[in-house]
Amino acid sequence: MIAQANVVQFDSISLDSGAVLGPVDFAYETYGELNAAKSNAILILHAFSGDAHAAGISPETGKPGWWDNSIGPGKAFDTNRYFVICSNVLGGCRGTTGPSSINPATGCPYAMSFPVITIADMVRLQKMLIDWMGIPRLLTVTGGSMGGMQALEWAVSHPDRVVSAIPIASTTRHSAQQIAFNEVGRQAIMADPDWNEGNYYGRKPPARGLAVARMVGHITYMSDDSMREKFGRRLRGKDNFSFAFDVDFEVESYLRYRGGEFVNRFDANSYLYITKAMDYFDLTNGRSSLAAALESARARFLVISFTSDWLYPSYQSQEIVGALRARNCDVAYVELESNYGHDAFLVDVAEQSDLIRGFLASTYEKVP
Amino acid sequence: MIAQANVVQFDSISLDSGAVLGPVDFAYETYGELNAAKSNAILILHAFSGDAHAAGISPETGKPGWWDNSIGPGKAFDTNRYFVICSNVLGGCRGTTGPSSINPATGCPYAMSFPVITIADMVRLQKMLIDWMGIPRLLTVTGGSMGGMQALEWAVSHPDRVVSAIPIASTTRHSAQQIAFNEVGRQAIMADPDWNEGNYYGRKPPARGLAVARMVGHITYMSDDSMREKFGRRLRGKDNFSFAFDVDFEVESYLRYRGGEFVNRFDANSYLYITKAMDYFDLTNGRSSLAAALESARARFLVISFTSDWLYPSYQSQEIVGALRARNCDVAYVELESNYGHDAFLVDVAEQSDLIRGFLASTYEKVP
Repeated sequence: MIAQANVVQFDSISLDSGAVLGPVDFAYETYGELNAAKSNAILILHAFSGDAHAAGISPETGKPGWWDNSIGPGKAFDTNRYFVICSNVLGGCRGTTGPSSINPATGCPYAMSFPVITIADMVRLQKMLIDWMGIPRLLTVTGGSMGGMQALEWAVSHPDRVVSAIPIASTTRHSAQQIAFNEVGRQAIMADPDWNEGNYYGRKPPARGLAVARMVGHITYMSDDSMREKFGRRLRGKDNFSFAFDVDFEVESYLRYRGGEFVNRFDANSYLYITKAMDYFDLTNGRSSLAAALESARARFLVISFTSDWLYPSYQSQEIVGALRARNCDVAYVELESNYGHDAFLVDVAEQSDLIRGFLASTYEKVP
Repeated sequence: MIAQANVVQFDSISLDSGAVLGPVDFAYETYGELNAAKSNAILILHAFSGDAHAAGISPETGKPGWWDNSIGPGKAFDTNRYFVICSNVLGGCRGTTGPSSINPATGCPYAMSFPVITIADMVRLQKMLIDWMGIPRLLTVTGGSMGGMQALEWAVSHPDRVVSAIPIASTTRHSAQQIAFNEVGRQAIMADPDWNEGNYYGRKPPARGLAVARMVGHITYMSDDSMREKFGRRLRGKDNFSFAFDVDFEVESYLRYRGGEFVNRFDANSYLYITKAMDYFDLTNGRSSLAAALESARARFLVISFTSDWLYPSYQSQEIVGALRARNCDVAYVELESNYGHDAFLVDVAEQSDLIRGFLASTYEKVP
């Protein structure tokens, strides 16, 4: 399957901060075909470091998408049946306007003059795309982690536009610990002199700070168990300790590699803006309670969490489920057994795929 | 209680790496009085960022010691009854020779020419102190976290010199996840250009990198629950989001403060060396199994862990206990209920104190 990569430009978007941003480029890919009734569209929402390339082979890089094991002919999101859309979030660095984009008013990159954005702003831009495509209702909105936050925001803000929602390994709001891990990443970037208050475009980026931020991230995405299985205390290419500060352990080598690699594909300022959007996210913002926030929701829900996910622990998914059930919403919840930690929604997809396949089929049957 | 601060100098010490280091200054404090039989001495072993000032008021800083709630007249380590010793570890920066010390051969700080040290090296230096003090056997060796590793090393390497051992919130070896968190801290320091390959003495230290390393540490010392209770999503001195990259949340303010504060009392190179020693630590190093490693141990053990400690999870303490029981050692194990995470051994000490008090009393009774 070859991915269809597109960019659409919108004149402007009004943001939660009060700022108006424009024009806005919006990068997206689609897989499968929209049916005549326009009733088979699924919006996939990516996590923090994802992009619009969710599935298929990118003609540009030759690489499969980040959820290619779940999107395609016969897969969980069956492209023989459904029309699947994935876009790069507002504030991103993979085709959609973000801090690394040129501000047409100045001819220079926005850098830190880019407005602070929210998860609701991301969804607002996605809705402009869905409107522009002429899709009346999305069969489902779904994603893991930050993608799940967007799915929840869709269900609450545009109840008439979503038939169902599948938030995976997600939360209605970041805990102090989740904010803390994001803050450490931001501080690591801003501590790098090459960050230069965000003005590094055209020069050396804050590669060391961004790499450290990413290393912290990788630890939180895995579980104690999965790290033990993958690395244990194995030494890297030697039989004895180096008694030096080179790499001794496999796990050190892995973190350094993944940290260094990330710098080639991700913009440090996007790291700041997108983590801030996650930290600000709270479905109860401006509402009296979670129940009140969900009052408008009409979608069917499938909520999924993973036993070993300590970054977005199951209790956070159970909070969503409890609040939906208190409102007599149609909600199914499954906590899947997995050792993969938060990464499970990306890598341990066999059972998740079965759940999604069944849920989508029964939802699609009921569409008028 | 006023702390007695002392420094003793030893000519040299032979290290696990094969290096010989000397002379070595060794900073220690004592509380209470050694009895005539020299049978009431307790060696307290500090955790990663601790120092010799475990209890009482420092005449220098006016501050109480890091375990002042547990050491003193009538406390868990009752100084009316016991003679308590605490020293700063080899490689440290609080009086004991470490990378920030002057190398007499060059007249300059060792910096990264300081030899890589191990937990066994730390214990070797402590034993020199105990020999020099003429103490035949320690009533107990105890500490939390890295202090617990030293206690285990004492029990295995010098079985004839310890009557009992109390490793708290500790492990026989670092897991991949524990190594990973330490590696991130090291990378944060080494990514700071002010680190300058370790040669920053007399100039600007790598304050930003060290602060980021410490922020990561603080997250791992607390639990999800304790962070929720202490900070939740409370905003810092405002009612609304800043829509900027200033501090929004209390937890961000706390981390920035604690990170910045740490720089004033801790040496970045000591951070590198001491975390490396922890990562290298493995009681089974050079032995076929944990059971084989414990073969020489003769001490009574009290092993303590905490329910919410995810950095040194209870299963690691249970591994110690299982291996000791398999050898029919005298071991008591208690998993204490606490929300404080790894910090519990420092702050949530009421039950811990009762356990220690009883264990010490019954151990002291049996001393010939």
